[in-house]
Amino acid sequence: MKNREDTMHIRLINPNTTASMTAKIGVAGARVAAAGTQVSATNPDAGPVSIESHFDEAVSALGVLDEIRRGEREGADGGERVDAYVIACFGDPGLLAARELTTAPVIGIAEAAFHLATLISTRFSVVTTLGRTCIIAEHLLQNYGFAHHCRKVRAAEIPVLDLEDDGACALGRIIDECRRAKTEDGIGAIVLGCGGMADLTDEIREAVGLPIVEGVTAAVKLAESLVSLRLGTSKHGDLAFPRAKTFTGRFDYLGS
Amino acid sequence: MKNREDTMHIRLINPNTTASMTAKIGVAGARVAAAGTQVSATNPDAGPVSIESHFDEAVSALGVLDEIRRGEREGADGGERVDAYVIACFGDPGLLAARELTTAPVIGIAEAAFHLATLISTRFSVVTTLGRTCIIAEHLLQNYGFAHHCRKVRAAEIPVLDLEDDGACALGRIIDECRRAKTEDGIGAIVLGCGGMADLTDEIREAVGLPIVEGVTAAVKLAESLVSLRLGTSKHGDLAFPRAKTFTGRFDYLGS
Amino acid sequence: MKNREDTMHIRLINPNTTASMTAKIGVAGARVAAAGTQVSATNPDAGPVSIESHFDEAVSALGVLDEIRRGEREGADGGERVDAYVIACFGDPGLLAARELTTAPVIGIAEAAFHLATLISTRFSVVTTLGRTCIIAEHLLQNYGFAHHCRKVRAAEIPVLDLEDDGACALGRIIDECRRAKTEDGIGAIVLGCGGMADLTDEIREAVGLPIVEGVTAAVKLAESLVSLRLGTSKHGDLAFPRAKTFTGRFDYLGS
Amino acid sequence: MKNREDTMHIRLINPNTTASMTAKIGVAGARVAAAGTQVSATNPDAGPVSIESHFDEAVSALGVLDEIRRGEREGADGGERVDAYVIACFGDPGLLAARELTTAPVIGIAEAAFHLATLISTRFSVVTTLGRTCIIAEHLLQNYGFAHHCRKVRAAEIPVLDLEDDGACALGRIIDECRRAKTEDGIGAIVLGCGGMADLTDEIREAVGLPIVEGVTAAVKLAESLVSLRLGTSKHGDLAFPRAKTFTGRFDYLGS
Amino acid sequence: MKNREDTMHIRLINPNTTASMTAKIGVAGARVAAAGTQVSATNPDAGPVSIESHFDEAVSALGVLDEIRRGEREGADGGERVDAYVIACFGDPGLLAARELTTAPVIGIAEAAFHLATLISTRFSVVTTLGRTCIIAEHLLQNYGFAHHCRKVRAAEIPVLDLEDDGACALGRIIDECRRAKTEDGIGAIVLGCGGMADLTDEIREAVGLPIVEGVTAAVKLAESLVSLRLGTSKHGDLAFPRAKTFTGRFDYLGS
Amino acid sequence: MKNREDTMHIRLINPNTTASMTAKIGVAGARVAAAGTQVSATNPDAGPVSIESHFDEAVSALGVLDEIRRGEREGADGGERVDAYVIACFGDPGLLAARELTTAPVIGIAEAAFHLATLISTRFSVVTTLGRTCIIAEHLLQNYGFAHHCRKVRAAEIPVLDLEDDGACALGRIIDECRRAKTEDGIGAIVLGCGGMADLTDEIREAVGLPIVEGVTAAVKLAESLVSLRLGTSKHGDLAFPRAKTFTGRFDYLGS
Repeated sequence: MKNREDTMHIRLINPNTTASMTAKIGVAGARVAAAGTQVSATNPDAGPVSIESHFDEAVSALGVLDEIRRGEREGADGGERVDAYVIACFGDPGLLAARELTTAPVIGIAEAAFHLATLISTRFSVVTTLGRTCIIAEHLLQNYGFAHHCRKVRAAEIPVLDLEDDGACALGRIIDECRRAKTEDGIGAIVLGCGGMADLTDEIREAVGLPIVEGVTAAVKLAESLVSLRLGTSKHGDLAFPRAKTFTGRFDYLGS
Repeated sequence: MKNREDTMHIRLINPNTTASMTAKIGVAGARVAAAGTQVSATNPDAGPVSIESHFDEAVSALGVLDEIRRGEREGADGGERVDAYVIACFGDPGLLAARELTTAPVIGIAEAAFHLATLISTRFSVVTTLGRTCIIAEHLLQNYGFAHHCRKVRAAEIPVLDLEDDGACALGRIIDECRRAKTEDGIGAIVLGCGGMADLTDEIREAVGLPIVEGVTAAVKLAESLVSLRLGTSKHGDLAFPRAKTFTGRFDYLGS
Repeated sequence: MKNREDTMHIRLINPNTTASMTAKIGVAGARVAAAGTQVSATNPDAGPVSIESHFDEAVSALGVLDEIRRGEREGADGGERVDAYVIACFGDPGLLAARELTTAPVIGIAEAAFHLATLISTRFSVVTTLGRTCIIAEHLLQNYGFAHHCRKVRAAEIPVLDLEDDGACALGRIIDECRRAKTEDGIGAIVLGCGGMADLTDEIREAVGLPIVEGVTAAVKLAESLVSLRLGTSKHGDLAFPRAKTFTGRFDYLGS
Repeated sequence: MKNREDTMHIRLINPNTTASMTAKIGVAGARVAAAGTQVSATNPDAGPVSIESHFDEAVSALGVLDEIRRGEREGADGGERVDAYVIACFGDPGLLAARELTTAPVIGIAEAAFHLATLISTRFSVVTTLGRTCIIAEHLLQNYGFAHHCRKVRAAEIPVLDLEDDGACALGRIIDECRRAKTEDGIGAIVLGCGGMADLTDEIREAVGLPIVEGVTAAVKLAESLVSLRLGTSKHGDLAFPRAKTFTGRFDYLGS
Repeated sequence: MKNREDTMHIRLINPNTTASMTAKIGVAGARVAAAGTQVSATNPDAGPVSIESHFDEAVSALGVLDEIRRGEREGADGGERVDAYVIACFGDPGLLAARELTTAPVIGIAEAAFHLATLISTRFSVVTTLGRTCIIAEHLLQNYGFAHHCRKVRAAEIPVLDLEDDGACALGRIIDECRRAKTEDGIGAIVLGCGGMADLTDEIREAVGLPIVEGVTAAVKLAESLVSLRLGTSKHGDLAFPRAKTFTGRFDYLGS
Repeated sequence: MKNREDTMHIRLINPNTTASMTAKIGVAGARVAAAGTQVSATNPDAGPVSIESHFDEAVSALGVLDEIRRGEREGADGGERVDAYVIACFGDPGLLAARELTTAPVIGIAEAAFHLATLISTRFSVVTTLGRTCIIAEHLLQNYGFAHHCRKVRAAEIPVLDLEDDGACALGRIIDECRRAKTEDGIGAIVLGCGGMADLTDEIREAVGLPIVEGVTAAVKLAESLVSLRLGTSKHGDLAFPRAKTFTGRFDYLGS
């Protein structure tokens, strides 16, 4: 069993390439981390600056996998071993693939938020950015088994990068949508549907008056939980390391 | 946001009245708790010495609720406030009722184990004590949304209190059943289906060679997670404090 | 096969301790009972005066179990054997535990109403008392398998004990909510979501113009049905009598 | 509310045209009927002599509808009014269509057996005739909402009309299959999957040692229940009488 | 593998007996058929002139089965073999029974439309004729597995035969309902819920500005697909030819 | 409506980079294509040589998207327009993302096979390559809505590239597993779970004696169907073209 004095290292991977969002996510994660937990935040060099579609998500998954591989290499090369990874985009891009690449736990922020929301309420709603991404949350809810715990997936109709602007406009729209959820949905909690909202949680909670579950912070705590329990991704069965094989072309670096 | 130096206090409630099991659960919980977390373990004065049926469970729920009320009173009376509660019986007896009584998080060990198991494997099986209690796990899996993540609920056919005996017989049967699950079920992890197995996790893991998710330890970490995130049981909606009312007879102490 | 001349005895257990409601339930049950059926109505000495939360429900389950045990004892002691039990609270508190205690059938009024509603309509809605109890009905619908037969669980926002007042206010609000259900939900029937509405069925039906399925009366007929068919609670498998064991403290009377 | 002295009349419709089976069904129904209940059993003039396929079922539905219409006419013509109908084939052929034709309740024997089985056990299995009809039971279980209550649909591989033969061969095979279900399925009750087994219930129960739920008898009691409660098929919404229209050709008698 | 030069023959069966609708369906089917596909459209001699209830549907199933048998006979008698059948009523009446009668594929227009709609959108709504038939579509969606792909089943409240009138009134109401679906339902496509709308698809699509999936045309293409792939109805298991048996009375022609 | 003389062009995208498999897939697709359909088969330059894990799948999705973009560009540049795309790997990698990039239909071979299998049987099983990929099929079955139509996902435990070897060993193992499915699963059809089996369909069908549904061929026909019906991917709602944005690093070519 892990010694309490041990430190652990959680790597937050922002799947998009907007450094300001990465920094924000890192700050949010670090704020809730335990004393012995080191939080580092990275993003891929290559990929979309925001993730607002299945397409953006599919491309960002590559970046996530590259970052997992980089994290694993760092540990293997005598650097700071990564004890757990967080995929900090609400679509959990590349989650199962990432799990195959490591014995460490890998947590998506959508799943993290859903899990914790069910522990403090019987029903919740999700408030996300653009309407077109609601389907992503709906699919995840169904895959993970939480569909009947969620009353409604709502969109504030804010492009993700508007969350990087200083103007309070995005915040206001999110609060408005959360209030509608509170009034209309018969819920006990709200899940914020974008990693870029990680710094807004407190303001939203105070304005709305409901527990607000935010995924980055939720995932950091779940990652810490698993590491403390020495529970890593199972290498028995379908999350085992991928079979060694050739990759061609620009992806040849992924092969063996 | 919670200051990292803050301590927190997690109360483990063993719903049965077997003190040796309470002690064992307390030790298991304390072993995995963070440095700043105080773990206390209690059990009700009154109730079944083990929980192996719906009937045992229904009676034990009263004990759980009494213990929650006691925990709340201690805090109110200037004692050590309880920051989170764990219900340490795999049927999660009284879970939703307990949540109504407090703003603190309340976590059941079955739900805790199910949640964490889905984070490290795509499919798991449950190994519990007596065959007659399998239905309890099946109902919980369905209610929580994890039915399709679980391949099979298996019983080692051990009465709960046999887990308190020193003879390794119970352990052997659990390991045998876990190995069958590993071989036959197409799974990546096993969930132990009884709080009384909390001290056996390491031995089982080594003997079986699969990640073993144990509920008491899982629940402690989830409780810590929620407290760190300042996420308590929602008091908006259906988990609000019960309406004040009269209780009659021996339950009059519950009334207002 | 049961001789038609035989009489049978159905015990209605009102899980709350409000005698006027018990009486009302007894009258409602007796009105629909067959000629040879004796209906007796009881309530526990101890427990909540009304059931409007998970907490109230958990406590009331103890009372239900005590009443089942009393019923069984009466028969064993040469008194009038109870042939079937009805749990007359819409949350069906203690249902599975109660079934473990007897070979007689035990029927909850929520399940009874749901079953019969599906036999006369393709879709129904539930109209219950307080909004906070809707979740209880939703959980039951899912557990029993009726979730997709029910369009909506609605609350008239009436505290249960208001149903004991003479003022027609409660009745009016229930009728209003039923009418909204009829207009908006695309349903063929309404299930009344509280045992305390058992005496209002006729008035509601006439005011609303839809079949109204009420649980107490439904459960009496299902109980008669099972007794006539000599179908009792299965003692093979997970509803067998609980294993004999010690109960401690004030619950020691439950032990063996 | 129905006066207890009132009699009621339940019409059992055997959807196949084998008179011996109709008689057997009538006897089984009459044995369990209440003192005031008159049971009549009929079968269509035209249709399959047994129902062992979707095709047989579709044709038999016409016969069922003709019998419902005949029942309604008899009442309208001053004959004995039919208070409830039972469709006595385990596929519940024509059930929703039949409900449209009458304000009386219409009960299928498969649904009846499923409903009652869930009241006395947490899990049951079905033992039916031919393997090819298992899919019919599986579809019904899913439509009615009972899929997760049923462990397995099993076939004894007996053609339906073998149940009309005196040789005990069919009975033996059914008992064998029921015993396998008892041993292997983790169940508390068995549902017999054919109206032609209505006379075998007692023998099977004694041989197998489990509660055996038989649909004809179950449906009679549910029909009595609904009539006593004055709950008829809802005429509000999608089970209202069909719109008047022309039928052509040999079906012109169905038109208006 | 089928030679491309081969022709194939698809028989569209309009389950109602309105010849003008049969003709319309035949035209719609022929318009989308491949060059080598011969489309013939028939309707039974006997049955309802429109299908707007479970009752109409049950009767029409007989006509469907007669038409399948006629189609099979024509091929056997040296006439033009039918390579695939389409059941051109949105309730897919008699579908599984029809499949038992032939090795050719049999496609219902509701299932066909649902299948194709899921290939071009993540969520769709259905717009059908009368509100009372919505339940038929809901049941099919659930049976086929598409319930969570469909946001809403809507009715334009048009009797089926109004679709045969020249007045544009029906079209206007359908377009209005489709526009409401587009605005309110969060969908990517609309499924038209009646074979009688087959000639309106283009107009509706242009007016609404969404992909409109129509069942007759969808089914013709799926039928062609299966024939090209030499995939016929499986005769292994529960869709095998019905067992030979006697049918009595006016249905004796169905027996062997 | 599409003129029958029109030709159409279907692009088969093999998501792995093994040219021999691409060729095989192209041949299989062309064999079943209609006379007017041109089939071209491509694979990405870069990516895994076979797809046997979530990781392989995530990487291959990029190749799929590149190929979709290339197909779109070819049409825009005056080359042969692509009328529909098929993603020829049984995990349907990148399916929803691909749909966002085009108005043409995009069909995955897993979904195609599932859809057609439900049209010719009530229950099917899947036989795929490696056990570790079974979970991929299970997830797709659930997402698409076909989970309850599939009895079992089975693996022949053959690495994908063994399908490229001449030795009949792979074929033998597949046939063995299919025969086990036929004997044990209660099914009417088998779905082949790998694009690399496209050339084995006839041999398997003859050896097994069941309808064998193969995805590449199924997808070609569904693609033809949608093109003939002028049904393209909906651009209303969540499959609309992705919002224009910057992509960084090696993915900058994807940005606007």
